[in-house]
Amino acid sequence: MAGDGTKKVTKEELLAKAYKPAQDAKRYHPFYRGKIEMTPKCVIRDLNDFGIWYTPGVAEPCLQIKEDPLLSYELTNRWNTIAIVSDGTRVLGLGDIGPEAAMPVMEGKALIFKYLGGVDAVPICLDTKDPDAIIETVKLIQPSFGGINLEDIANPKCFYILDRLREEAEIPIWHDDQQGTATIVVAGVINALKLTGRKMEDTVVSMVGAGAANIAISRMLVAAGITKRNIIMCDSKGVLHPGRTEFEGTEYEGKWDMCLNSNSGGRTGDMAECIRDTDVLVASSRPGPGIIKKEMIAAMNEDAVVFTCANPIPEIWPWEAKEAGAVIVATGRSDFPNQANNSLGFPGIFRGTLDVRATTITDEMCIAAALEIAKTAEDRGLSNDHIVPDMTDWEVFPREALAVGMKAMEQGIARNKVSRQELYEHAESIIRRAREQTALLMKEGFIPPPPPDE
Amino acid sequence: MAGDGTKKVTKEELLAKAYKPAQDAKRYHPFYRGKIEMTPKCVIRDLNDFGIWYTPGVAEPCLQIKEDPLLSYELTNRWNTIAIVSDGTRVLGLGDIGPEAAMPVMEGKALIFKYLGGVDAVPICLDTKDPDAIIETVKLIQPSFGGINLEDIANPKCFYILDRLREEAEIPIWHDDQQGTATIVVAGVINALKLTGRKMEDTVVSMVGAGAANIAISRMLVAAGITKRNIIMCDSKGVLHPGRTEFEGTEYEGKWDMCLNSNSGGRTGDMAECIRDTDVLVASSRPGPGIIKKEMIAAMNEDAVVFTCANPIPEIWPWEAKEAGAVIVATGRSDFPNQANNSLGFPGIFRGTLDVRATTITDEMCIAAALEIAKTAEDRGLSNDHIVPDMTDWEVFPREALAVGMKAMEQGIARNKVSRQELYEHAESIIRRAREQTALLMKEGFIPPPPPDE
Repeated sequence: MAGDGTKKVTKEELLAKAYKPAQDAKRYHPFYRGKIEMTPKCVIRDLNDFGIWYTPGVAEPCLQIKEDPLLSYELTNRWNTIAIVSDGTRVLGLGDIGPEAAMPVMEGKALIFKYLGGVDAVPICLDTKDPDAIIETVKLIQPSFGGINLEDIANPKCFYILDRLREEAEIPIWHDDQQGTATIVVAGVINALKLTGRKMEDTVVSMVGAGAANIAISRMLVAAGITKRNIIMCDSKGVLHPGRTEFEGTEYEGKWDMCLNSNSGGRTGDMAECIRDTDVLVASSRPGPGIIKKEMIAAMNEDAVVFTCANPIPEIWPWEAKEAGAVIVATGRSDFPNQANNSLGFPGIFRGTLDVRATTITDEMCIAAALEIAKTAEDRGLSNDHIVPDMTDWEVFPREALAVGMKAMEQGIARNKVSRQELYEHAESIIRRAREQTALLMKEGFIPPPPPDE
Repeated sequence: MAGDGTKKVTKEELLAKAYKPAQDAKRYHPFYRGKIEMTPKCVIRDLNDFGIWYTPGVAEPCLQIKEDPLLSYELTNRWNTIAIVSDGTRVLGLGDIGPEAAMPVMEGKALIFKYLGGVDAVPICLDTKDPDAIIETVKLIQPSFGGINLEDIANPKCFYILDRLREEAEIPIWHDDQQGTATIVVAGVINALKLTGRKMEDTVVSMVGAGAANIAISRMLVAAGITKRNIIMCDSKGVLHPGRTEFEGTEYEGKWDMCLNSNSGGRTGDMAECIRDTDVLVASSRPGPGIIKKEMIAAMNEDAVVFTCANPIPEIWPWEAKEAGAVIVATGRSDFPNQANNSLGFPGIFRGTLDVRATTITDEMCIAAALEIAKTAEDRGLSNDHIVPDMTDWEVFPREALAVGMKAMEQGIARNKVSRQELYEHAESIIRRAREQTALLMKEGFIPPPPPDE
């Protein structure tokens, strides 16, 4: 961790460290040739057991489910299985790289779903960019899954796809680049405001980028207590204000809403104008470094809080933001402090959603998760370099699952009614099992150690 | 195993035994709630490793695959992953029970794919019965998979779907109810004819049922040396002959071809007429018992050979067929001898196909597999109750993989060129690993023992 050590090490060392994961990834991916695999979860004492699991015995559960399709949640792994669906049109900060090239990300996500959430996730990258074909395919594959995680789909079609699927699908649909990222940033903002002694409703927030992530973050920030007219958002053409009529009546409904209802001071101008004199900056734009300049951060209010979420490299290196006066800096990267990474959200949120068999994932469930994430970090002790849990605080995941599941029951959208204690214990034990299973497979050599450094 | 013990135990005992798998299935399915799960196959030494497997490091393999999509076979698990796709319209002998109800079968199949073939298989049951929608969906999900196993799709659309996908898809497409079943029956017929001293070309074969399985079996039997005009096939309306013009110009091309080119004796009449005076009976019709009567078997030639393949219960109980004079009886069930079950085929055939990265699975590859299955049983010693390997002879799977892979290379449709020894050793080691991994997970309690008998 760079931690507070940003002053003690050289920039060259920090840069070298920032590029290390890419170097390891290049050597390890061809070595492992995949990050997840299927394993049996039922006994195979001898080959006769296939007469139970396959023909002839399997006819029994088939006929039961035929009578009541919801029994598929009791008699198959559907209760714990989701699909990660992408068309590869907006992968990390890499843009439209295609469905095959998106696979390493989706496999990585499936790995995290299992290890941190105990959720079985199947990567499905689609050979189409047509939003209606994506919607249709998701609807067709529903019988095998308990939920769908949409991922890395370009803006603005991702709004259309999510909205239609939330309407038409029978299982919970989640777009991590909207809801997931928003949940974590809200958690981080909540704690950053505590540390800098600000009130939600008075905080002025600049937002650089008006894509799927930032539009969703703005909505969730407002739901959490930020005043909408205190937000100033810009896209690549400058600040959003009522004069940006190019969005009126287009698919960019969220942007047009921001034009009309944010930025009560009526700012115009470029990114620098957007950021100037604000308390909190949330950037979800293009991979850096160098997208946001040090002088822009220096023009923020005292005790500035900066979220630079672009992947794989933030809009400005965190040490540069601090040199420019930011007191709290969060990025999307796991190798810097304050990782405002959606990996803190989706595993626990889906765990809770699946465990109460919620029919959808509401914004209120996301806010409940954000509050619990914030509280977990606070319980460990807040500091400028610890505004969100780091992922080693793995109790955050069952805690989120509990918060999300309780909220779903409260909202009347949970098919399973379970007690608080059962909900927590189930989440905790299934996540613990995933971690211990991985440790066992490594110890016994089924997962070999990586190739040595060159 | 009933074995040669059919004379020693009572029919009541045999019947009780025949229903035992169903009873266990009913208790075990709600206990395990799924038969397969996702597990990590790469190291997670600590949480920082997610910086390699997910953002930021994962951008490296993504960009490599963007340049060359075939690298998805080297840098993700695609090389070893297939989808099992069904619409649930013809599940086992249960008919159109729907996609949710088909899931236990597809999960069971995925379990077998892994345990016997080392193949990672993902069940995907589709909420449509429209053949074009099925084709379109399979084409759209291709980027995530190295192959597709079609399963339990109704006749005749299954022919249309398989034919079009073999034409239009870029990855190997297999319909197990056609090609898989045919491969095993051909292997069994080869050995049964050795035991009963018959020549392929002179053998008279009756076939009860003219659905996907039997049409595919007839084609594969002819490819293996059976004389087409020596086959007599019947459907529910009776024997196929040139007068059955209701099939002319319909989707039932295979049936019409049989009307014209089989049955050189010009038989007409019902099932009994079909079976009378034939050497070998292959039935793939409706679940029994009682579909085929003892007197029909009694009217066959001396040393009759009977394949009754209906699931979950064969067209006639094997002991009844034997009482009626059959010397060799095979069924689809794992709890009787001579299980002519497609589980003997698909795991090894896909293993070989994936390991040489064949672009399709040809009939010649299936015949190569059938010959190797027959030879494996012969190497263990043929007998009337051992015409095909039972699944405990697990060397059959790497042997098939080798035979299939070598044939694909010979036919020039393999993207990977590997030596005979490499091919065998890789198949053997990956299957052994799957078995040992399962044993470890059971031993360490990650797969708990089943609930005790009631």
